Amino acid sequence: MIPSINATHDPDRRSWVPGADAATSDFPIQNLPFGVFRRRDEGSDAAPRVGVAIGSHAVDVAAWLHSDGDHLGRLDEAAQRAGRACAAPDLAVLMGCDPADVSALRAALVAGLDAAAAADARIPEGALVATDAIDLLMPAEVGDYTDFYCSIHHATNVGSMFRPDNPLMPNYKHLPVGYHGRASSLVVSGTPIRRPQGQTKADDADAPTFGPSKLLDYEMEVGFFVGPGNALGEPIALGDAGRHIFGLCLVNDWSARDVQKWEYQPLGPFLAKSFATSLSPWVVTAEALAPFRVPAFARAEDDPQPLPHLDDADDRGRGGIDLQVEVHLDTAQMRDAGVAPVRLSRGSFRDMYWTIGQMLTHHASAGCNLRPADLMASGTVSGPEKANRGCLLELTWRGQEPIELPTGEVRRFLQDGDGVTLRGFCEAAGARRIGFGSCHGVIAPAHGG
Amino acid sequence: MIPSINATHDPDRRSWVPGADAATSDFPIQNLPFGVFRRRDEGSDAAPRVGVAIGSHAVDVAAWLHSDGDHLGRLDEAAQRAGRACAAPDLAVLMGCDPADVSALRAALVAGLDAAAAADARIPEGALVATDAIDLLMPAEVGDYTDFYCSIHHATNVGSMFRPDNPLMPNYKHLPVGYHGRASSLVVSGTPIRRPQGQTKADDADAPTFGPSKLLDYEMEVGFFVGPGNALGEPIALGDAGRHIFGLCLVNDWSARDVQKWEYQPLGPFLAKSFATSLSPWVVTAEALAPFRVPAFARAEDDPQPLPHLDDADDRGRGGIDLQVEVHLDTAQMRDAGVAPVRLSRGSFRDMYWTIGQMLTHHASAGCNLRPADLMASGTVSGPEKANRGCLLELTWRGQEPIELPTGEVRRFLQDGDGVTLRGFCEAAGARRIGFGSCHGVIAPAHGG
Repeated sequence: MIPSINATHDPDRRSWVPGADAATSDFPIQNLPFGVFRRRDEGSDAAPRVGVAIGSHAVDVAAWLHSDGDHLGRLDEAAQRAGRACAAPDLAVLMGCDPADVSALRAALVAGLDAAAAADARIPEGALVATDAIDLLMPAEVGDYTDFYCSIHHATNVGSMFRPDNPLMPNYKHLPVGYHGRASSLVVSGTPIRRPQGQTKADDADAPTFGPSKLLDYEMEVGFFVGPGNALGEPIALGDAGRHIFGLCLVNDWSARDVQKWEYQPLGPFLAKSFATSLSPWVVTAEALAPFRVPAFARAEDDPQPLPHLDDADDRGRGGIDLQVEVHLDTAQMRDAGVAPVRLSRGSFRDMYWTIGQMLTHHASAGCNLRPADLMASGTVSGPEKANRGCLLELTWRGQEPIELPTGEVRRFLQDGDGVTLRGFCEAAGARRIGFGSCHGVIAPAHGG
Repeated sequence: MIPSINATHDPDRRSWVPGADAATSDFPIQNLPFGVFRRRDEGSDAAPRVGVAIGSHAVDVAAWLHSDGDHLGRLDEAAQRAGRACAAPDLAVLMGCDPADVSALRAALVAGLDAAAAADARIPEGALVATDAIDLLMPAEVGDYTDFYCSIHHATNVGSMFRPDNPLMPNYKHLPVGYHGRASSLVVSGTPIRRPQGQTKADDADAPTFGPSKLLDYEMEVGFFVGPGNALGEPIALGDAGRHIFGLCLVNDWSARDVQKWEYQPLGPFLAKSFATSLSPWVVTAEALAPFRVPAFARAEDDPQPLPHLDDADDRGRGGIDLQVEVHLDTAQMRDAGVAPVRLSRGSFRDMYWTIGQMLTHHASAGCNLRPADLMASGTVSGPEKANRGCLLELTWRGQEPIELPTGEVRRFLQDGDGVTLRGFCEAAGARRIGFGSCHGVIAPAHGG
């Protein structure tokens, strides 16, 4: 049930929309990620619109479907169902649709954006808006947010710092470890991130103190939005998991390491994470990612096999995604000096020990109901090399190996004014490169600071 | 900002509604908890209605406000604002109102339910519906659910089983330990609870297996719904916490102990808890609880003082609530034999180490935004004696001290068909007894079982 390659993935297809065919565009016609935005020319209280990105433009889906008399009525029935879902103020209703309906709507969008389309079959230019004239909003109101911990490299690195004698728990290779996160503080890319306050305790102190976190970090993660979902008490077979994964985005799981260290035992991370989590605004559909599916993580010979409900041939063969993720940093001083952001790391989503299908199936296995627009994130994407480490805790090894920036500044953890940008893209032989856009946030001073 | 005693608490006030004045009624005129229900005579797809419980009846608030021409228009402005919020399909909008508005609406309800009211000032009988003719629904769609761990007796007991050498973590007396729970699987009292499946590993096994949980437990907790809440990044001072606590209910945090033991490290409880959590349907307002406020937990002399943001004189003096909570069990065999449920334990919410104000203030202290109708639960309410232990894990000491039932059956953990009922009530000199109703669930066999 992992989506297969179809005609929408044809790498030779081109779009008539300006900018969509630049080799570096994240949003060629093969991508068409969904998002939600306001048009600036309509004011800050205008109704949010559902759209797809194409080059440097967005298609206002509802405007397109209402164009030309009633374009919606001329689509096939499956596309009509998904099209009507785009009248909602965010993507939650669309995410709840049958994946075949979403696929049909995407095919209709491809037909109207294709350079080969006849002039009267094209999406009217009035339904296109330049992305620099819109404000991107949260893709959906997330009901529940779950954060996994699926990079064995990250888990081993962090575990060795927090628990030197016991870095990787015995359960790690048997189930995708995860925890419930906070949905209310999910924010869209671009939202300033206020440095949290919290309780911390120095190793040599008798008692904790309360104040701004001194060890503020990012975590480079990949998230996915749940599709139709399951009823309470009904598990989801791994073979059906693909039906329930609508699409993926980038997630920055901002983390206050000093707060985390003091609070996390025995019930896990809490306020060290829930002050803010940033999402990239464009949701790349699972369908668009079909050409980049790769085998699941290659387990070592002495690694345990997953239990049967977390294992099937399709997931083993195509459960992975060849998605490159990057973290870029700039400081206020760098911006003032006109110095470009520096790339701190690049990792691959292939390096995750568990697949997104396994995460979803595990989550539902005890009967927990997953709802359309629930969000799951992978945990920090780190790989085997230092250059692959997806957070500062690992990259500077708890501050012991500081990073020197082009301005001569040094970073162990994030300072006020620092900007963090996540990027992600997929490349594969025989496929058009597609991207995830970016997920950006700048650190603002702590409350009262 | 903890609500004070006012005229609505007068213990001598009586209601003209039948049953409200029975000494054992949970819902005298001094209580008036809010809930959401469907009238059975309107069918299963009728719109949900917001109401308050009074004796064995519920006031349909919208019907009352629309009665007699336009009763709403004759209320004072504050009560009108809260009254309009009761037109919503659940309590979330009302919870977002200014507490003074909710208080004004309650005062108007008291006036119309008072036995001393003139006949034409009474709430019309058409706006009353018998509680045995309604189906109670979830009080609100909860955005985020947080579960704390605030009974030091529970934490010490459980800690000594899971970590004999380290029962109480060093952070316990410095902050209210909590974790994010799952909102989607919150269910209202009466919903059957399907036994979860999950991964478990016996101590002497090499590898885990997947199957129905064998160590299914309840946890007797007290929950509270958030009122207006805070913006992202803005903490809530302890002195303001009372404004943001709408009301309280009973929570059964069903727990699969064998799943929990295997999964919970290092990121905390996940699927062992998120298969279902039951709520009592009537939300007792913080205002109704004013006569039962008592000093916060009496810390030992060598216990640390809370940090300043978690400490103030009002919370120390009146942050506690003298609320008795009970757990009752019946089995299928007991019901067949006509044997009444047995009380397994009784505890007091006074025994919690942290107050609800401290829980809320801590939660917002790092900037996490709390929204109307978010739910926080206290963690298992256990006291110093065996009779006060609020879950089977503690009560049977991990199964070592089984419970014998009147039928001769023995319980270490819950069996299919077992029914668990939580009850809660407040009594104090000079105040009318008020109750929380009940929170009930019966264990259904595992999926495929």
